[in-house]
Amino acid sequence: MIDKINKITERIESKIISYRRDFHRYPETGWSEFRTASLVAKRLKDLGYTVKAGREVLKEEDMMGLPSEEELEINWKRALTQGGDPFFMEALKGGFTGVVGILENGSGPVVAMRFDMDALDLAESESTDHRPTREGFASINKGVMHACGHDTHTAAGLGIAEILMELKEHIHGKVKLIFQPAEEGVRGAKAMVTAGVLDDVNFLLGHHISSKWKKGEISPGMGGYFATQKFDAIFKGQAAHAGAKPEEGKNALLSAATAVLNLYAIPEHSKGATRINVGKLTAGTGRNIICDRAHLLIETRGENDRVSDYVFKKAIEILNASAMMYDCRLEIKPMGSARSRESDKELAERVEKIAKEIGAFSFVTQKSEGGCEDITYMMAMVQQNGGLATNIGIGANLSEAIGKEVILRGHTPEFDIDEGSFKYTLKLLTAVAMDIFKGNG
Amino acid sequence: MIDKINKITERIESKIISYRRDFHRYPETGWSEFRTASLVAKRLKDLGYTVKAGREVLKEEDMMGLPSEEELEINWKRALTQGGDPFFMEALKGGFTGVVGILENGSGPVVAMRFDMDALDLAESESTDHRPTREGFASINKGVMHACGHDTHTAAGLGIAEILMELKEHIHGKVKLIFQPAEEGVRGAKAMVTAGVLDDVNFLLGHHISSKWKKGEISPGMGGYFATQKFDAIFKGQAAHAGAKPEEGKNALLSAATAVLNLYAIPEHSKGATRINVGKLTAGTGRNIICDRAHLLIETRGENDRVSDYVFKKAIEILNASAMMYDCRLEIKPMGSARSRESDKELAERVEKIAKEIGAFSFVTQKSEGGCEDITYMMAMVQQNGGLATNIGIGANLSEAIGKEVILRGHTPEFDIDEGSFKYTLKLLTAVAMDIFKGNG
Amino acid sequence: MIDKINKITERIESKIISYRRDFHRYPETGWSEFRTASLVAKRLKDLGYTVKAGREVLKEEDMMGLPSEEELEINWKRALTQGGDPFFMEALKGGFTGVVGILENGSGPVVAMRFDMDALDLAESESTDHRPTREGFASINKGVMHACGHDTHTAAGLGIAEILMELKEHIHGKVKLIFQPAEEGVRGAKAMVTAGVLDDVNFLLGHHISSKWKKGEISPGMGGYFATQKFDAIFKGQAAHAGAKPEEGKNALLSAATAVLNLYAIPEHSKGATRINVGKLTAGTGRNIICDRAHLLIETRGENDRVSDYVFKKAIEILNASAMMYDCRLEIKPMGSARSRESDKELAERVEKIAKEIGAFSFVTQKSEGGCEDITYMMAMVQQNGGLATNIGIGANLSEAIGKEVILRGHTPEFDIDEGSFKYTLKLLTAVAMDIFKGNG
Amino acid sequence: MIDKINKITERIESKIISYRRDFHRYPETGWSEFRTASLVAKRLKDLGYTVKAGREVLKEEDMMGLPSEEELEINWKRALTQGGDPFFMEALKGGFTGVVGILENGSGPVVAMRFDMDALDLAESESTDHRPTREGFASINKGVMHACGHDTHTAAGLGIAEILMELKEHIHGKVKLIFQPAEEGVRGAKAMVTAGVLDDVNFLLGHHISSKWKKGEISPGMGGYFATQKFDAIFKGQAAHAGAKPEEGKNALLSAATAVLNLYAIPEHSKGATRINVGKLTAGTGRNIICDRAHLLIETRGENDRVSDYVFKKAIEILNASAMMYDCRLEIKPMGSARSRESDKELAERVEKIAKEIGAFSFVTQKSEGGCEDITYMMAMVQQNGGLATNIGIGANLSEAIGKEVILRGHTPEFDIDEGSFKYTLKLLTAVAMDIFKGNG
Repeated sequence: MIDKINKITERIESKIISYRRDFHRYPETGWSEFRTASLVAKRLKDLGYTVKAGREVLKEEDMMGLPSEEELEINWKRALTQGGDPFFMEALKGGFTGVVGILENGSGPVVAMRFDMDALDLAESESTDHRPTREGFASINKGVMHACGHDTHTAAGLGIAEILMELKEHIHGKVKLIFQPAEEGVRGAKAMVTAGVLDDVNFLLGHHISSKWKKGEISPGMGGYFATQKFDAIFKGQAAHAGAKPEEGKNALLSAATAVLNLYAIPEHSKGATRINVGKLTAGTGRNIICDRAHLLIETRGENDRVSDYVFKKAIEILNASAMMYDCRLEIKPMGSARSRESDKELAERVEKIAKEIGAFSFVTQKSEGGCEDITYMMAMVQQNGGLATNIGIGANLSEAIGKEVILRGHTPEFDIDEGSFKYTLKLLTAVAMDIFKGNG
Repeated sequence: MIDKINKITERIESKIISYRRDFHRYPETGWSEFRTASLVAKRLKDLGYTVKAGREVLKEEDMMGLPSEEELEINWKRALTQGGDPFFMEALKGGFTGVVGILENGSGPVVAMRFDMDALDLAESESTDHRPTREGFASINKGVMHACGHDTHTAAGLGIAEILMELKEHIHGKVKLIFQPAEEGVRGAKAMVTAGVLDDVNFLLGHHISSKWKKGEISPGMGGYFATQKFDAIFKGQAAHAGAKPEEGKNALLSAATAVLNLYAIPEHSKGATRINVGKLTAGTGRNIICDRAHLLIETRGENDRVSDYVFKKAIEILNASAMMYDCRLEIKPMGSARSRESDKELAERVEKIAKEIGAFSFVTQKSEGGCEDITYMMAMVQQNGGLATNIGIGANLSEAIGKEVILRGHTPEFDIDEGSFKYTLKLLTAVAMDIFKGNG
Repeated sequence: MIDKINKITERIESKIISYRRDFHRYPETGWSEFRTASLVAKRLKDLGYTVKAGREVLKEEDMMGLPSEEELEINWKRALTQGGDPFFMEALKGGFTGVVGILENGSGPVVAMRFDMDALDLAESESTDHRPTREGFASINKGVMHACGHDTHTAAGLGIAEILMELKEHIHGKVKLIFQPAEEGVRGAKAMVTAGVLDDVNFLLGHHISSKWKKGEISPGMGGYFATQKFDAIFKGQAAHAGAKPEEGKNALLSAATAVLNLYAIPEHSKGATRINVGKLTAGTGRNIICDRAHLLIETRGENDRVSDYVFKKAIEILNASAMMYDCRLEIKPMGSARSRESDKELAERVEKIAKEIGAFSFVTQKSEGGCEDITYMMAMVQQNGGLATNIGIGANLSEAIGKEVILRGHTPEFDIDEGSFKYTLKLLTAVAMDIFKGNG
Repeated sequence: MIDKINKITERIESKIISYRRDFHRYPETGWSEFRTASLVAKRLKDLGYTVKAGREVLKEEDMMGLPSEEELEINWKRALTQGGDPFFMEALKGGFTGVVGILENGSGPVVAMRFDMDALDLAESESTDHRPTREGFASINKGVMHACGHDTHTAAGLGIAEILMELKEHIHGKVKLIFQPAEEGVRGAKAMVTAGVLDDVNFLLGHHISSKWKKGEISPGMGGYFATQKFDAIFKGQAAHAGAKPEEGKNALLSAATAVLNLYAIPEHSKGATRINVGKLTAGTGRNIICDRAHLLIETRGENDRVSDYVFKKAIEILNASAMMYDCRLEIKPMGSARSRESDKELAERVEKIAKEIGAFSFVTQKSEGGCEDITYMMAMVQQNGGLATNIGIGANLSEAIGKEVILRGHTPEFDIDEGSFKYTLKLLTAVAMDIFKGNG
């Protein structure tokens, strides 16, 4: 089986790289992956997958941090001019940019893989030191860039789709390839979970490219993700002339100031570290008008779900009381969230075993870094249903390719990865899936 | 009529002074005027008045700032040993220390007069420069003193009762002599009003002795009283070990601190000056225990009822929100209140006219001083019913009596007044009442 | 003399109206009155006045609320294309848009008049109901409008300049015509005072057109102005990743929130009403970055200088302490200020007398309205030096002109005045000045 | 050597128990151990030790949380009547209740042991279920009780002193027996350290009895102590009548409320858990008086010295800024402090080895519990000088003695220990000391 996988991989490798370069050239931010998702859907359909997209795979009320309708429409139109598939783009309208490809053969376990597709609000480096610029596949969407590697995830997803289709007869069960929007800001996973996409899944594999590790290095079971809630709070009061009629105002700024002080005063929890931050506050209009609107950008974190939920619950209580204090109304807008989750050891060990078989030469044990990932929502659902899940790190440091030591960090204009890492991703994920089917076949 | 009044006054003057000295010797603080009120009731009954006392003239739920049951009982027993009237003291048990004497003859207007009876928590001067000490009628109740002149008001009330009874045949209508407890802290008037004592009153006369003005000076219509609300707020949270289980506490001190900051931040009102103060805060137990109880002493004021009610309402909203913020419960205890009120000009001018007739030699026009008086509750009820009310200032400066310039301020251990002022009080109030009855006779 | 004044006024009236319409068409906001002030200077020079302008009449460090250099330059260039006088515009560069015209004859008192020149950030009504639009002199500077009548003040100033020059031989003393920038936001007067412009003035006359009063109504001595301080406070802290390195941040938002709560808690003053408002707060960048910069727009007011200075001083103390609390730096930028001031009764009575002589038919006594005017800085300097000052209200309601009852309030897009009021302004101010010179001649 | 130690221990065991019962009967709280310390000093002297006491072994400015002079004097006099040694009590006056006994023989390492002597403010159980009550050695000092076992520590110290003196010829170096006052509230150790008592120490042994572990169980190297700072903050402002002169007050309660909110808002530290608590706040006098004094009881903790120092430093900054904000003065009173410290593994292993030799039958590995101990100050000094230190847990659960399962927790009225544990303490500490001397002899 490994041999078969190796052969197909070698055959399609350069095509997958060209996919990646295409996605890189046309980056789209969260909930606006109209071109990307429509091309993914088209390709999956062409390969023979059953394709679900749009409202079938995303529950509207859980789509967090959606851009304005105007922005979505502008981005949709741009996608159309940039070669998005018109048929599938209809289904994605309004930001419903999730796609799932399904391949079924006989009965057996359901193996899902998750690929995130969104880019970042960041202007790509225009230096010729930056290979995408030098080789002509840098972003042409100004101020938007694939600087976190989701272009490689999406392209790898299409490569895996092709390999698995060729191996269809050996599959005993179901493959679900989940292409998720809006991972940045941890906004997109929850709505796919609540839409039911993960309900029947027994095994979940995620992966993330990493420029910290060498090509060929694998971290079979990443973990230590912090749970987080990202949300906006808006106090709405009533304006009044501060000199002439101070008693007529409902001062939203006083509500906001009270909230800020008390939010930071939420007590620590004995069961784990927590964080809270009010990163931004915009309030008021004129100097002598009592402020009638205050808008806060807030984030809570916790090293486990329990303490994260604790600090979020307290924050909401404090915000409500702060609104009441000056007779203001409060609006809370969820803008993103993720869970704290660990990869299952049992599945990670299986990944590690297969990794050796496909020739990945070393294995990194990932420690907690306090970051957040919304695949945790999917892992939580699978684990809750008795399944196993793991998120796999794939080394893709550029040093070997360019002949000098370098770490190009994510979320920077110079970010780049070694495309030679694709073969490891393709081989590893398909081989793990096939190993699962074999065991259950 | 003036002649008759003069004669009776001269006859009884020394008795009234001896009454005053007796009350001065046995001072009792608000809601504990058991001896005073029972002797007043006894005397009114002996004179022939219909006497109402206790629960008949005080509505329990509006009695503000009551001492503890233990303290009331201790004071009640002391009163008994100090010569209180056992019969009437039964009715006064539990702090119901109000008394009303009624004298009716024919039909006609109802003329009420109010006399307050309570003393202060203050240790009287033991210096022989202080006449009560020198002449042996200083307080024997340690730490309690008549330092605001309510002993003179009570004694004058009994003198007026005697004169009016002698003039009974000339009365055409009803006289109500209202002896009120707990004026200090503006605690007692409201409960007499809500018990209905003022419901039928057409004319209300109050008076207050003043050491600022010379004997014989009269202020016929004092006013400019600030409205006020005095109350305690108690936050009840939950204790927890601050180091081991910080998340289990409900921090009453954080609620209190939030409340304090926001109470002082209540906006000014364009219709008049307001004040707020948190005078005292007691919170918590041990250094490392999350505070589970915080007790605040609060007072709001306003130069008119509208702005006073505004600042009080805002304060309650802020306290409620502050409790909610840390999941604490809030208890509000009313401890005193008064209204903003002006004397009726029409009645004050009648007082001024009579004052001249009885030989009071000059007239002070009282300006607002931002103080509070709870006779305002009674004035408000009378005025609201279409009646007239005035509060009269009676000069009683001691300078003439002792032959040197001195102002002995109220609420100090050295406070004293010129007892020669009694005759003005007795003559003026009875003459005004008789003038009213004559007009309606 | 009145006759002479009347004649000249009638002769020049239509020219002054055309000046006004020109200024109205090219409105310029505070510190950008490049065209207006340069044309004023040119006209004064042409009339024979000694002209001072720019840095001679404005002290740089007291020029409050200056726009950015970029904005000043854009406005300067616009003024040039719109017919500003190139010679005088050199002196005004950088916002130094004050002009003073001096006329001296013999020795005698110094009589100053103040005219403010700036427009507002407001888009003028484009309705043909609005006469300036209908008759073609509405603002062509988008978003800028003379909606407070300063265009009429400036034009009146030029008319008065012309009349006085014709009467030069009857002047015994010195005339100073002060054309002030940036009255809106009370920003410009102080810098003219500290530049010494008022140092030798014995009599100061200001005037303000009012759409509330009928044409011909005069308020000879307006007053009751509140003192005010308008300023920005900027807290500068240090950013840090709120999740990873919370201890490295210096949270400017916590400083700001602490400041807001405590600023509103500044106690009332027993000597007069005060106000404080934080109208606007802008703080922070990203949701999970500790806020490193918070910008507050603040205003304090007081019904007299003493209480105004009290609340301002307290505010600065609180801001300093709030900065210290989170190790932030604090920058305070003065953005405007005015004093509390009353017109001198003696001078107002003189104005009233003259008003009758010129045929102004009724007299309004202006009550305090709690507003602010920075002529108060000039009045304070003159009064402090033993001189007399008054600010005169000039009725200019449009009802008579358009034949229906209407009040067009200032600072609205529809504001307009009856140009028939010019003759009253011209006659009254020149007649008062000449009366002063006569008396001292 | 072990044999010798065993024999002496068996001989003196019952005497040591009687010492313990004597100390238990006359408990004394921190800085008032006049009787206890004087008897310790006397006994050490009688045994032949060089004794230092009082100011020789305590630096006055570092003595934290001293009672008032009045209380110290009362306790001193009580100690005299209860059999304190008059000679040594002179040296201890004023709370200087530390004692050090020194035994030197030849040259070699300095081995110190620390014994704490103070009792708690707690009323001992009067139930006959409580052995000290039943057997007549319960506290006769009302409201004071040895409920943490320091009586056993002190008695064990005297037993060890006797054994070591008998083994003097085998000692090659110096023994320092340190009897420390005021461990409760972590108040006493620092002043002994800064007085230089630990400067020459190479090995430090502490021990603490534990009712959680069985008799014979040993924890050779306890650790995980949190660092802590306990202190009082007092804001001193200025009183004023809140209604009449609000501007004259300096509101200490507003400073305190601001401090409370901001203290709880101190950000977490990425290098370890921190805690802060304001356990108690007492502020103000009368309802309508602006508060002029606020007293806060505060405690900070950190799981290591670095984060503990961070949170303490931030707290002081916030308190200073809060005082400044209302022009109050701030006084900080240190009331206790301890360091975070671990026992040295090398020394703990030596203790474990010896423990086996003396027949202690099992070994508990102590985990961190977030508690505080001020022996950490002594450990820090020794470790800083290159020495080794360990704090040893000694099991003393009462279950075996009374024949039923029971855990009598410290700081409760029923606390008691199995006196059969003494022999383990005596043998273990002397054997470890002698082992050190042997190795260095």
